[in-house]
Amino acid sequence: MNRKMVYFLIGRILLLESGLLLLPLAVSIYYADGGLFPFLITIALGLALGCLLCGLFRTDDPVIFAKEGFFVTGLAWLSVSALGALPFVLSGQIPNFIDAFFETVSGFTTTGASILTDVEAMARSMLFWRSFTHWIGGMGVLVLMVAVMPNLSGRTIHVLRAEMPGPTMGKLSPRLRDTAKILYTLYIAMTLLELVLLVAGGMPLFDSAIHTFGTAGTGGFGMKAASIAGYSPYLQWVIAVFMMLFGINFNLYFLLLMRRFRAALRSEELWTYVILIGTATALICWNILPLCAGFSDALRSAFFQVTSISSTTGFSTVDFDQWPTLSRMILVLLMFIGACAGSTAGGLKVSRAVLLFKTTRREIRHLLHPRSVTSVRFEGKPVESATLISIGTYFALYMGLFAAFWFIVSFQPGFDGVTNFTAVASCLNNIGPGFNLVGPAASYAGYSPFFKVVLAFAMLFGRLEIYPMLISLSPSTWLKK
Amino acid sequence: MNRKMVYFLIGRILLLESGLLLLPLAVSIYYADGGLFPFLITIALGLALGCLLCGLFRTDDPVIFAKEGFFVTGLAWLSVSALGALPFVLSGQIPNFIDAFFETVSGFTTTGASILTDVEAMARSMLFWRSFTHWIGGMGVLVLMVAVMPNLSGRTIHVLRAEMPGPTMGKLSPRLRDTAKILYTLYIAMTLLELVLLVAGGMPLFDSAIHTFGTAGTGGFGMKAASIAGYSPYLQWVIAVFMMLFGINFNLYFLLLMRRFRAALRSEELWTYVILIGTATALICWNILPLCAGFSDALRSAFFQVTSISSTTGFSTVDFDQWPTLSRMILVLLMFIGACAGSTAGGLKVSRAVLLFKTTRREIRHLLHPRSVTSVRFEGKPVESATLISIGTYFALYMGLFAAFWFIVSFQPGFDGVTNFTAVASCLNNIGPGFNLVGPAASYAGYSPFFKVVLAFAMLFGRLEIYPMLISLSPSTWLKK
Repeated sequence: MNRKMVYFLIGRILLLESGLLLLPLAVSIYYADGGLFPFLITIALGLALGCLLCGLFRTDDPVIFAKEGFFVTGLAWLSVSALGALPFVLSGQIPNFIDAFFETVSGFTTTGASILTDVEAMARSMLFWRSFTHWIGGMGVLVLMVAVMPNLSGRTIHVLRAEMPGPTMGKLSPRLRDTAKILYTLYIAMTLLELVLLVAGGMPLFDSAIHTFGTAGTGGFGMKAASIAGYSPYLQWVIAVFMMLFGINFNLYFLLLMRRFRAALRSEELWTYVILIGTATALICWNILPLCAGFSDALRSAFFQVTSISSTTGFSTVDFDQWPTLSRMILVLLMFIGACAGSTAGGLKVSRAVLLFKTTRREIRHLLHPRSVTSVRFEGKPVESATLISIGTYFALYMGLFAAFWFIVSFQPGFDGVTNFTAVASCLNNIGPGFNLVGPAASYAGYSPFFKVVLAFAMLFGRLEIYPMLISLSPSTWLKK
Repeated sequence: MNRKMVYFLIGRILLLESGLLLLPLAVSIYYADGGLFPFLITIALGLALGCLLCGLFRTDDPVIFAKEGFFVTGLAWLSVSALGALPFVLSGQIPNFIDAFFETVSGFTTTGASILTDVEAMARSMLFWRSFTHWIGGMGVLVLMVAVMPNLSGRTIHVLRAEMPGPTMGKLSPRLRDTAKILYTLYIAMTLLELVLLVAGGMPLFDSAIHTFGTAGTGGFGMKAASIAGYSPYLQWVIAVFMMLFGINFNLYFLLLMRRFRAALRSEELWTYVILIGTATALICWNILPLCAGFSDALRSAFFQVTSISSTTGFSTVDFDQWPTLSRMILVLLMFIGACAGSTAGGLKVSRAVLLFKTTRREIRHLLHPRSVTSVRFEGKPVESATLISIGTYFALYMGLFAAFWFIVSFQPGFDGVTNFTAVASCLNNIGPGFNLVGPAASYAGYSPFFKVVLAFAMLFGRLEIYPMLISLSPSTWLKK
């Protein structure tokens, strides 16, 4: 294994993070909220560590393979989370490092699960950094590195593939760096559009930035105890629609940009996602109608909560933990499916669900007509049988991991089964709130430190789609020559 | 499709069921409990229908293929359940046909979920028939038909394969009829052994028969409101050990009988099953110790409940719904795994879980070393890649069905999510009790008729491992020439 290149890349990532920390540093200077020194110290530490690693492990052999790709990705996310947690600790706003690590992992993985019991008491620069991690983590730390840093050609595809969600990776351009640049350009454009629409609707600029970061990364960190409930219906609709939009494969936006409208609108994954959201909204709207002030209130509440959970964002406008059994159940199902591959969202991904369904249908047909040979087609193309096996295994692994995390978290004393089940589902699928003790009106503060670390790892496993974390944590990766 | 042969076989099955009904008829005569006419009328109806079908659809072409095999199996189980429900309705003991159908399906599928609110008020002959359906359904109605009825060579392998649980079918003898006979002989021998041990422990003969039927079929219907709680520790241990034994692949008993001890003890599935039960027992024993009268009480309670849920039987000696979160969580996980293939138990089956784990492990190895070629081995033999794909698809289909059933049952008004989740898990995995409103101290009586039918179908899907039911319910099976 090319260990040198791995550590060299980690150094680069830390340098990049130090650069990104300049933004909350500026915010802290503007608001003079005491964030100056915590951010300065963190930046200095990041620069020192980054230069040290880049200097020590400079190598003439930049070639890396799949294994290094996974290893770099897992290690990079752990490193940026550990460094990113420091401002919270140093400022005393989240004095406990484990709590701060949980919060930062939750930020970068765009989960939005919080241990804060009083978010409104936080300093502005800390709130900004907390939400900014969503924005960075949404499209990917390593994708950003490839986009902005020169001299990284090598075999960076392994790094990108390990970080980008979904069963396959669409190359928008033959040059990987161009792909990464296009993705970030689209991402920035959509982020600005939402920001403008929120400000136009009367939301203060700072609030708009916070909520746009949370929406764009499909994260869900807000700045109010009541999440989005206090804002006007217009603002709620804007956020709901953008949550849905950020859950769509970015390749489709690229196709729109290229004026290939037909190709974009033919996407099976897109339509399945839209139909899922539509059906869930209709059912929940009907189910909660008696609890609401009227149809438009019910429709808005249903649509907002459905897009929030579907896109794995986790904002809320009502305490959906108080909804009837059917509506709560639909939300749990949506948690597991998630949104589209190639978006900033988590979960199993709609395309995997569609492919699992199609493979099953073929299996049944094959049972009935043993001699029939039919191929599974997706987005107009036949899918390789190796991809089908991978998706089946991924699903099994994913459910197995879910069971394993649920099992471990059940050791937490005094918590009920629904809390633990939905806490793990919410963290593994990068959503944020669950039900009962981790409902939208509550926080993860009650878990003991050990279980906070476990849940933070569940978020990382979910965001990086399992393999990078498995490989980074495997002793053989560390011990073998 | 060879429709004639399908209906002919259904006729045969009804004739067989009429014969089996002679046993509860005898019990009703012995106890003079009013069951005489209900059983007589049902037997007469079964004979008439059976003769009619066999007469009308006599055919010279007994060849059937996979599709017919699934279709016969699904249809046969629906038919025997519908006919088997009649004595309950005719005797007025379960006046509503839907309730009686639920109870009979629950019997044949060895689920043990009950709509009875006062089981101790039932007539003896009805209790006997209810538990006897467990015994018949455990090893299989069609397996019994192949074993006892002559002139059924044809392609009966498709029928057996559709009814016998597990990813592959072990042929004990080159002749299928001999395989079926060997299985039933082993089954009868083990049933008698348990009966003798229970009677020797002081349990009345009738009670012993009821509980032996429930254990052998891994069903769980009892005759007391408190299930097994009222019996002595010795009797509880006997039942617990036999629940575990009936969850083991019967091929292993055949190997023991053939004095191939080494081959039997080398089984990976057996050891995984034993280790699962051991670990779960130890954890739960530690977890419930503070609630129990002492270590031996805790150990017995833990082992009994673990073997009961693992083997998908559903007997109980304590109200495990009152246990701490961790213990309840372990029971839910065990519900999904189930016991060994080729046993009378339900669930996903240990062998499938092991194979899913091994496939995942290979996938990870393949990701790290793309050029490596390793085969998955199970029970000392390499597993075909087609089998691996089937298992992956089966798992996806199974979780998909679970989600679909859970979704439908969530429409039941007034029931909470835990009740619905565990009710579906319990029915699909053929266990019996769940948590909350369907806990071991409660019953399924509260569900509306529509949802009782839905749950009855969940049991049939679980017992027959999905495909036979899917194919029997598919419109194309009924409409196409």
